[in-house]
Amino acid sequence: MKTLTTPILLIGAPDTDLDIRYLSGFSASDPVVYLQDRKRKYLVVSTLEKQRAERVTQGITVWSLQDLRLSRVSGRKIHDKAIGLLRKAGVKSIVVSPAFPVGTARKLTEAGIHITIAENTLIPQRQIKTPDELLKIRESQKAAVLAMQKAIAMIAHSRVNTRGYLMNSNRILTSEMVQTEIKKKLLDYNCSGRGTIVAGGKQAADPHESGSGPLRQGESIVIDIFPQNMSHGYWGDLSRTVVKGPVSPMLKKMYRAVKAAQRAALSKVKAGVSVAAVHKSAVNVIAERGFKTGVINGEVQGFIHSTGHGVGLEIHESPGIRTRHTRLRSGNVITVEPGLYYRDKGGIRIEDLIVVTPGGWNYIGRCAHVFKV
Amino acid sequence: MKTLTTPILLIGAPDTDLDIRYLSGFSASDPVVYLQDRKRKYLVVSTLEKQRAERVTQGITVWSLQDLRLSRVSGRKIHDKAIGLLRKAGVKSIVVSPAFPVGTARKLTEAGIHITIAENTLIPQRQIKTPDELLKIRESQKAAVLAMQKAIAMIAHSRVNTRGYLMNSNRILTSEMVQTEIKKKLLDYNCSGRGTIVAGGKQAADPHESGSGPLRQGESIVIDIFPQNMSHGYWGDLSRTVVKGPVSPMLKKMYRAVKAAQRAALSKVKAGVSVAAVHKSAVNVIAERGFKTGVINGEVQGFIHSTGHGVGLEIHESPGIRTRHTRLRSGNVITVEPGLYYRDKGGIRIEDLIVVTPGGWNYIGRCAHVFKV
Repeated sequence: MKTLTTPILLIGAPDTDLDIRYLSGFSASDPVVYLQDRKRKYLVVSTLEKQRAERVTQGITVWSLQDLRLSRVSGRKIHDKAIGLLRKAGVKSIVVSPAFPVGTARKLTEAGIHITIAENTLIPQRQIKTPDELLKIRESQKAAVLAMQKAIAMIAHSRVNTRGYLMNSNRILTSEMVQTEIKKKLLDYNCSGRGTIVAGGKQAADPHESGSGPLRQGESIVIDIFPQNMSHGYWGDLSRTVVKGPVSPMLKKMYRAVKAAQRAALSKVKAGVSVAAVHKSAVNVIAERGFKTGVINGEVQGFIHSTGHGVGLEIHESPGIRTRHTRLRSGNVITVEPGLYYRDKGGIRIEDLIVVTPGGWNYIGRCAHVFKV
Repeated sequence: MKTLTTPILLIGAPDTDLDIRYLSGFSASDPVVYLQDRKRKYLVVSTLEKQRAERVTQGITVWSLQDLRLSRVSGRKIHDKAIGLLRKAGVKSIVVSPAFPVGTARKLTEAGIHITIAENTLIPQRQIKTPDELLKIRESQKAAVLAMQKAIAMIAHSRVNTRGYLMNSNRILTSEMVQTEIKKKLLDYNCSGRGTIVAGGKQAADPHESGSGPLRQGESIVIDIFPQNMSHGYWGDLSRTVVKGPVSPMLKKMYRAVKAAQRAALSKVKAGVSVAAVHKSAVNVIAERGFKTGVINGEVQGFIHSTGHGVGLEIHESPGIRTRHTRLRSGNVITVEPGLYYRDKGGIRIEDLIVVTPGGWNYIGRCAHVFKV
């Protein structure tokens, strides 16, 4: 995590360009310019946003078009704002991230600015969560746990009709009904539940399918809840798989394998361990229990995703828990979520969120493990 | 809207890179590569996503790493996928948007690909909505109208306590309570209500303040609801301003001026008219009624934003209704939303969504105009 000595320039909407949100603490859906030159920090926002930006940021000089002596016409384009800022700050050489917009890069070059493109992320410290960030992630994860309890209770308390469909007060219980209840519960904690997965049967066998239609007894139902707090922007992430009614021996065997794989992966986690070692321990358990991963009948099936990923201002961020040489560091917040997916059997995923410590890890939010409900 | 003859290449997550979502019809939070070479269209997605991509797209060749003969290691980086795709498609020269990532552009250049950076958007046709898109926007706007009715009813049915606070069954009614009810209503229509504004008093005087804390009688309360459908991604946008209890003559005068400004702007709207003419007619009405816009006591106050903006897969897209030379075109979907903001008086905004036609415009979703409730 070397310190960059060349000033860094970022351009983007803080709501989607999370490096800017991380560095500035400012949230907005319209693009801003951020410059960091050793200890000096500058943010250029629209005139409308200046007061709010000054209120919510700390140690940052906030400028609007007027401060840069740009008119509403000459400062209309974001590169004009960037050039105005760099001139005013006396900066002629900058580092940008590989994701920096190529059109703006060209305009800056034409204006005589020297640009270096960083090889990787500009802000590696985002992977190491501060105590304040951990509190925020914990808040979102708490909402996930409460919404999960609600979802599982809905399924557990459902009746089963003669055709094997789950029934909720005389209506067939659908994925959408459970998703909506989850999202409403999350709203009570100021979280968005967009993308919530409640997928049963064949749908559960596709890890990216959010699920729709009636839920049935005897099928595995994957519930994956990843709330984002709508004020501070930090995410939680939690998955459970449940079955209502009789469970086939095969689904039981799959569930036990995934649970054992999660235990094995967790047992490896501590600062200094490579992510590949964590991933491999989960992969090995799944294989040892006789579950094949690979192309089966023309489709990729088995344990077909990574063991986990970092969580913070993005739902998927570094470090990814897969076959790489990265080492875990104290303060990483990661999911541990092995899964098994077969078209003709269904899907199982068990996911918890943890923070890596020097000697191991701690849960962020505890949620009971249940399967048959 | 000239047709590009050089192949266009886009890289990004379709959920945030809306050009890709528009062209491919595919939605995903992980990055994909999209290439369009005259009539041939290609999409490179992860192996996990291939089946879903083939199911939801039409007329697009979907490839994964395996199809490009890239291993999981050599195809790990998005530029490797792009280079693999361009090789397989036999394309050596591409056009990219100004927002294309500079790091990827460099890698492609190093691989011998010739890159032209477009001056503006690659996909100008996004501004002209198809009948299918209009249906989707109408669906989101319908949710906005129903949620607005619910929010206004909550305020209208509240009591006022001796200190002037609005009360809802023995609790002080807050901005957050109304926001949460709006968001829950939107969820019933599969829409996210993130960012919903319910701002009263001084907060209403800042158009980007979403609002918090107790609501009071006699203050203007700005309600701005912009739902995004969580399946198809199209937005709606609707604002009303209400006052509970006695209304001061000044707030009444402000409301009437904004209403008249909206009428004046709407009366100008038809295909072929410049956006500046629409904006100017609203600006003039506000000024004629004696309301000053500019820096007042060190703060920008008055009618301090544009008259409207395009709405589609993005909540703010082209055309912006402001002092530019762009002409409206049939099929543009725009908001018309003049407003007035004074720190010591409060804020007023009235916003409706319309589609531009050859001879005028039509509402997208009708919502009654109310002020005193």
